[in-house]
Amino acid sequence: MRSRVQRIFERLSPAADVLILANSEGPHIDTSFFYLFEASSGSFEGSAIVARPDGSITVLTSPLEAETALQASKDDRSVEIEVCARMDDQADALRRLVDAKARVALDYRELTHEGFEELQALLPEARWIDATDAIQRTRRVKDASEIARIEKAGAIVSTVAGQVPSLLRRGMTELQLAGEIEYRMTQQGAAGRSFDTIVGFGSHSAEPHFSPGGARLGRGQSVVCDFGALYQRYISDLTRPFHFGPADPEMVKVHAKVLEAQQAALALLQPGVRACDLHLAAQEVIDRSPWKGLFTHRLGHSIGLAVHDGFSLNRETTDRLEAGETVTVEPGIYIPGKGGVRIEDDVVVTDRGFRFLTTASREYLGPDA
Amino acid sequence: MRSRVQRIFERLSPAADVLILANSEGPHIDTSFFYLFEASSGSFEGSAIVARPDGSITVLTSPLEAETALQASKDDRSVEIEVCARMDDQADALRRLVDAKARVALDYRELTHEGFEELQALLPEARWIDATDAIQRTRRVKDASEIARIEKAGAIVSTVAGQVPSLLRRGMTELQLAGEIEYRMTQQGAAGRSFDTIVGFGSHSAEPHFSPGGARLGRGQSVVCDFGALYQRYISDLTRPFHFGPADPEMVKVHAKVLEAQQAALALLQPGVRACDLHLAAQEVIDRSPWKGLFTHRLGHSIGLAVHDGFSLNRETTDRLEAGETVTVEPGIYIPGKGGVRIEDDVVVTDRGFRFLTTASREYLGPDA
Repeated sequence: MRSRVQRIFERLSPAADVLILANSEGPHIDTSFFYLFEASSGSFEGSAIVARPDGSITVLTSPLEAETALQASKDDRSVEIEVCARMDDQADALRRLVDAKARVALDYRELTHEGFEELQALLPEARWIDATDAIQRTRRVKDASEIARIEKAGAIVSTVAGQVPSLLRRGMTELQLAGEIEYRMTQQGAAGRSFDTIVGFGSHSAEPHFSPGGARLGRGQSVVCDFGALYQRYISDLTRPFHFGPADPEMVKVHAKVLEAQQAALALLQPGVRACDLHLAAQEVIDRSPWKGLFTHRLGHSIGLAVHDGFSLNRETTDRLEAGETVTVEPGIYIPGKGGVRIEDDVVVTDRGFRFLTTASREYLGPDA
Repeated sequence: MRSRVQRIFERLSPAADVLILANSEGPHIDTSFFYLFEASSGSFEGSAIVARPDGSITVLTSPLEAETALQASKDDRSVEIEVCARMDDQADALRRLVDAKARVALDYRELTHEGFEELQALLPEARWIDATDAIQRTRRVKDASEIARIEKAGAIVSTVAGQVPSLLRRGMTELQLAGEIEYRMTQQGAAGRSFDTIVGFGSHSAEPHFSPGGARLGRGQSVVCDFGALYQRYISDLTRPFHFGPADPEMVKVHAKVLEAQQAALALLQPGVRACDLHLAAQEVIDRSPWKGLFTHRLGHSIGLAVHDGFSLNRETTDRLEAGETVTVEPGIYIPGKGGVRIEDDVVVTDRGFRFLTTASREYLGPDA
């Protein structure tokens, strides 16, 4: 079976002699680093991978991660570790491992421009090739071990979403609820959150990317929680709306419309469907409703090692989905100044349709439900 | 008083007509974006800032963050918000706001290479200037409001570090302890963790960047916890060693030596000291001990909006520190296969010396202490 490295090289156009992934400091750590080198531990800041068409890789790392890297590679003969005490040593190693005139593929989407300039100074005669698309396309279709990890991350958030109604208390702050959610994810086995948890009370729920703050929960408010778990470097991403005390009658209708929009998209989800058609199916439901124009973002995105794993389900993407892809489906309606509802699930495309990786109730729940 | 934008422009060499900060998707969000635009909420993925020498800025953002951006800018006349429904609209806005032949400063360390290529396609006649150094130098010296936020983040981790001995239980996993620590940070008012929490039991404490896993705590083991809080976008970063049950006699001596190394560095800490001299003072203490060569990383780094805020305290940095800079001081000794000790504090350089922003006990504590 071809390795991940080999499959990336097969997709590279023009062809390359070598692929270099160069991490900067956090947060500029290329998640593809862990796609090629499956170290369960370590952050690998400033580390690099040199990968070759035969599937072999050399990991250049610092003494800080040496022990971790050696542990992770000890049973894999395609992986070689070089410990570089200083950045100069890493530069020397790159010059030794890569031909001066090589065709070098790089991950333009993850590499910083500073990192590129450093490589260019090191290998002034190299020819550079953008590997972003080849890497993203290879990563899009997950293997069984990847799906299992995303499914575990999905089970964690589903369990915690089920606990949210019982966590809502009058006067609690958004940040407190976010903290309770994150704690319960770690209790369920998560290595942490996969992105900054979004909790919005009342009108804050109308801001899709709201950062939780000191606002306090009052009766009759709507609540949106958008959170994800990290499990063995893979992620989940779930959004559920709730209400505290009696639900606002308009928000009940908004919730039903968002759920209808999600179902309209899911009804089309199978191998071969175009991503844009999924988006448009959901958008059409909302734009035929009294809340026309208030679905202000894309329908979803691929998930995997990254929360936004390189692929978008929006009105413009004509790519067709394949079995093994894992994506979010997350329509929403946002009424400025009043509140919003978003329902987000993670799914894997199967041979005949799709399977949910998140299973929490999609009803509009409150503590009294 | 000159604004942050104006101070960056004064440092740019060669001079620039305009500074563009362009966020990609998470995690490639330039923290300098929030240095220039102090939005307390929002992630601003894909958003951009155009800043001018007169201190004014235009924020280009999507409908997703429009509400958040308008709220954050409503009392600041130097900030203009443009909502761009599509990426094409953002490209049009950039072409309109920036002269075709402008000298354009960019943050090469934060901008992705893909982002650079997109800007180059948009403004093919522009002249590009690396603003990394000017931005980092401006950000290094913090103002009172920034120090207050870092100090609050430092108070949060200090309180939680004091709780760790009471959290240690036989059989708990590293991930469970990490989850307990993170939960307690949010209870103390943190918006979350500022980086992936490091918890290592026993020999895992000898891996400086260890990622916590399923290892279970046993009697006589050493424990290293390295964690940070996020408070109003600013961060803290603290490491403390602990032991569970009777402390290993060698690790007790290692702990004393690391503390001595930290104190040797702190004794020199005042405005005008070279960063390398701080590192070397700590290293010399360790290299004169039986654990020579086992301090395998730099002494510290600046902190602020980012965990690694652009400046390193290592053996090579000859920069001199100034009052108002906030840095970590974190020597360690790592004995492969056995265990490690790191003691890390956050400090602000003052006119006469320094002040601790983290205050947790630096003793080698266990539940029986």
